[in-house]
Order: sequence, then C-alpha cells, then structure tokens
Amino acid sequence: VAADIFYANGFTAGTTREIASRVGLTQPTLYHYVGKKEDLLREIALRVDAEMSDALERGLASSDQPREQLTAVLTEFTEAVIRNQKLFAVYYKEQHLLAPEVRKQVAEHERAFVRRTAQVVRALQRDGTLPAGTSATVVTEAMIGMASWTYHWYRPEGRVGAREIARVFLQLLHLNPKRH
Amino acid sequence: VAADIFYANGFTAGTTREIASRVGLTQPTLYHYVGKKEDLLREIALRVDAEMSDALERGLASSDQPREQLTAVLTEFTEAVIRNQKLFAVYYKEQHLLAPEVRKQVAEHERAFVRRTAQVVRALQRDGTLPAGTSATVVTEAMIGMASWTYHWYRPEGRVGAREIARVFLQLLHLNPKRH
Repeated sequence: VAADIFYANGFTAGTTREIASRVGLTQPTLYHYVGKKEDLLREIALRVDAEMSDALERGLASSDQPREQLTAVLTEFTEAVIRNQKLFAVYYKEQHLLAPEVRKQVAEHERAFVRRTAQVVRALQRDGTLPAGTSATVVTEAMIGMASWTYHWYRPEGRVGAREIARVFLQLLHLNPKRH
Repeated sequence: VAADIFYANGFTAGTTREIASRVGLTQPTLYHYVGKKEDLLREIALRVDAEMSDALERGLASSDQPREQLTAVLTEFTEAVIRNQKLFAVYYKEQHLLAPEVRKQVAEHERAFVRRTAQVVRALQRDGTLPAGTSATVVTEAMIGMASWTYHWYRPEGRVGAREIARVFLQLLHLNPKRH
C-alpha cells in the first residue's frame, strides 16, 4: 500500500496517515509496527533488493550452461519487475531519499547483479552466441535496461503479460530457447 | 545547474538558493528570469520533450528505408539521453511533480514517440528484419528501454562513449548497419 501511494504521488507527497487509513490501521499503530515514512521506503528498497537477488540466484542456478543461465536471469528479472512494478518504480525514483547505508547496500547489490550477469555474457561472447569485441558491461546493461524499463511503460490492464514480454526480449536478442 | 542539483539530492531537497548561488545570481534575480522551483522542473521536462522530438524527427527524416530510420532513431535517442543524462533522470524521477498540463503534454509526446517508432518496427516485422508475431509496441519499448536506461547506469567518466553504446545496442538487435 505504501508503494501504491508513493507511486501515485511521490514519496514526499505521500503520508503515513493515508497509508494507515488504506490498511485500516491508526497512524500510531502503523508507526509502532513499521515506523515512519522513511522506514517504509527502506522496506520497499529491501524488497526490491531481495527480488533482484532472487532473480539472479534462481537464474544462475537453473543450469550450468551460460545461455540458459542468461535467459533464465533475464526472464526472472523481467517477471520480478513487472510483478512488483510499483516497488521498483518507487525505488528507482526515490533511491536518493534512502538513508545512506541502505542506499549503498542496495546499489552495491545492483552492481553485483550487473557484474555477475556480465560474466555469463562474457562466456557467451567467447562462444559466439553474443557479439564479441564490445564491452560485456554495456551488453549486460542493455539487456537489464529492456527489463528494468518495464517499470515505466508496463500497464497491468494491457494484453501482453510478463512471460510474453520476457519472451519478446529474448527473441529480439536472438536468445530465445531453441525449438529443435 | 538545476538538473545537476535536483539529480544529486532530488527535487524536494534542492533549493533555488543553491541553484542561484551556483550560477552566480541572487535568488530574486533567478526568480525574476526563470521563476520558482516548479518552473525549473517544467523547463527540464520541456527540454527532455524537445530532445525526444528531435531524435524522432531527425531519425525518421534520415532515410525512406525503415531499417535506416529505426537505427537512426535509436542512435539519436541514445545519444540524446546520454548527452542530457541529468535532465532525463530528473524528468523520469520527478514527472509526478510536474503541473498536470505539462505532465500530460510530455507524456503524450512520449507515447507518440513509441507509436511512431512502432510503425517503423511493424514495417520491419513485415519484411522479416525483426521477429514477427509479437507486439510491435513491446518490441519498441524494449529498444527504447535499452536507450532510456542509460540514464540510470551511464558514467561520463567511463571508457565507452554514447556512439559506441548506441552501436552495441544495434548490434545486439541485429540491426547494425550492413558493412557490405
């Protein structure tokens, strides 16, 4: 509910009164169990952090083949962003308002996501699956960008779901699972 | 300078005092020539709007061949986001704080950018250059996502420049200019 309200009006304009009333709590009860507005933003960032880590770990663990690992990481991550669109949107928009230690921790995990995905990309550049002779980091950020950007344009009421969107991304990258 | 300061600390924490002092003006002079903080945010949004339109129009006018049009639009747009990284970042993060009429106008132009690029994508799906049987809008947003997301990760002090990044995107999409 906090992500809902921060998503609609921004963190600054959102109030714990509104959040408390939407979940049927009094403001003091909300304060008691969760804390102040900044604590809600921290919780949102930590949820995004956990979703990113899960997508990465599940994707890497899904196979010992780099091609399958990369397609799994991208699929898991695309689905995570779409499933938690408002959490990711609020995190991407408001991360400068996080307490410095939380901000640093989540940003460091984001960089680790890129770094570890880039290792898989590098393996696929070596075996000719992906174009070689270009920065693996730029290739990785391009792929992550496709997925992350869904926070901006995806409409839940649209006709295309998360799994189909992930499939289109892989197809565009010529990484779609082989059919034969 | 305003984009600089809003980028570093967010729109809410940024002050016109800080902006005025950075450009060597008094606060009343800044108010007189530009207006209040909200007017600076509007100016930022309108600059982003103009950069988007320019990238689209220049890209479409560059050729009568859809493949060249699409590569030109993507290259121009990637370079525009990177060249104006802070303006785009502030717009993407703070657009909910714009006055409703400005917000609507720029958002409508953003949608037009997607719609007109999707027409070119559709032509390339018909001629087999891009995978058919998938939503042209999703394909378009995937490409725009690669470019837009540079607002989040690009570092001007890094080794890879805007033109090279755009080239990597096109290569990944198998749209790189033919060499023979």
